[in-house]
Amino acid sequence: MQFLGPHACEEALVRGELQVLRLAPAAWGRCAKLRAEARAAGVTVHQEPMEGLDRRSQGQRHQGVIGEGVELRLESMETLLGRVQARGNDALVLVLDGVTDPHNFGAILRSAAAAGADGVVFPERRSAQVNDTVVRASAGTAGRVPLVRVVNLGRALEDLKAAGAWVYGLAAGPKSSDYLREPFDRATVLVMGSEGEGLHQKIAENCDALLSIPMPGGIESLNVSAAAAVMLFRVVARRGAEKS
Amino acid sequence: MQFLGPHACEEALVRGELQVLRLAPAAWGRCAKLRAEARAAGVTVHQEPMEGLDRRSQGQRHQGVIGEGVELRLESMETLLGRVQARGNDALVLVLDGVTDPHNFGAILRSAAAAGADGVVFPERRSAQVNDTVVRASAGTAGRVPLVRVVNLGRALEDLKAAGAWVYGLAAGPKSSDYLREPFDRATVLVMGSEGEGLHQKIAENCDALLSIPMPGGIESLNVSAAAAVMLFRVVARRGAEKS
Repeated sequence: MQFLGPHACEEALVRGELQVLRLAPAAWGRCAKLRAEARAAGVTVHQEPMEGLDRRSQGQRHQGVIGEGVELRLESMETLLGRVQARGNDALVLVLDGVTDPHNFGAILRSAAAAGADGVVFPERRSAQVNDTVVRASAGTAGRVPLVRVVNLGRALEDLKAAGAWVYGLAAGPKSSDYLREPFDRATVLVMGSEGEGLHQKIAENCDALLSIPMPGGIESLNVSAAAAVMLFRVVARRGAEKS
Repeated sequence: MQFLGPHACEEALVRGELQVLRLAPAAWGRCAKLRAEARAAGVTVHQEPMEGLDRRSQGQRHQGVIGEGVELRLESMETLLGRVQARGNDALVLVLDGVTDPHNFGAILRSAAAAGADGVVFPERRSAQVNDTVVRASAGTAGRVPLVRVVNLGRALEDLKAAGAWVYGLAAGPKSSDYLREPFDRATVLVMGSEGEGLHQKIAENCDALLSIPMPGGIESLNVSAAAAVMLFRVVARRGAEKS
């Protein structure tokens, strides 16, 4: 989608939705702050003749500044908690504890959107953020699932539990039980760890239960986006679609 | 693993296992052909002092030429067919019809290895090949699953059918049935299409049945590596591990 004018672009930048910023030469100087902030956030910044911008906006007023991006569904934890309560046993939330690879992050958002998840929660720090690469890797589906960025992931899990959800952490190890045994018949939160290190210990301790995916091939772990897809679609399969 | 000497490196290059080639200055000139072929195959070529190579080989004879790479399990279609017949109803083979993204290719090899697949079949043309990027994306597991590179994918499917396997193509569409309905209780071949276009029509026509993964979120398709993981672990779940 397009953001027309400096104000719309500033707001899109704050929301993390801006991916490309195009400025006419006349706007270049007076938008130095916007340009700097956009560059710092990984936004691609182009200078382009005014006539080019006019064509892009199809005649709409742009004041020499046009942004491009994806309209993400960033929302507050409160909104997500409300939806979890409203959905009852059907609620499904994915929590990413330190997924830093943007390709994995994007592929996970696509799987979460496809599985009809109520939201994807991720921390402000030590995590990929939703940027151009992530949106591309999601094949443009990043805007189809609500995204909740939180300061404190442990507190988010506590809030989700208080809203009635059962929190599962995916972790290989002797404390984990086989994911195939779980009915997933109540509000479910799935917590996926980072590519290298898995779940942080504090986060693992915050989970109601740990699950593992048994692997006949004797490999230690799946790619985190593969594991997320397997878990999400296991929940989908258990909830109504399971046939024999 | 290491390949010591020009012959071992040449052979590793032919098998697609060579990722890095290190030559002493003394070997640089006489290995011009090897260097050129290695570069053409995407292998990184370094010149390095003889003493450095001595340290790397820990005193083993290297003739000024040391290669590094992963020992892949490339095998012939005949070998795979023999194993499929021997494994009977437990056989599981993944076929990639035009997966070109090396990150997806690597993640798929990792999932196939984890699921204990008997092999991954892919075409010589219009497909990612097993290179450094793929091996990295597989987190080093690419050597843990047998790989079969074929000239003609349609013929490979015919051979697999003749060996007793049932061939499923993953494709969204009205002709496809819900993958959750399949028991996967006989030798199974899963065919995954390319990221952009899905299965080639001729390949789809070669399949015994087409399957789709229902997506409650209304997204059209998953990332191919996510879809492969969901399919592979659905087969694993159906075969013995399924619990309620």
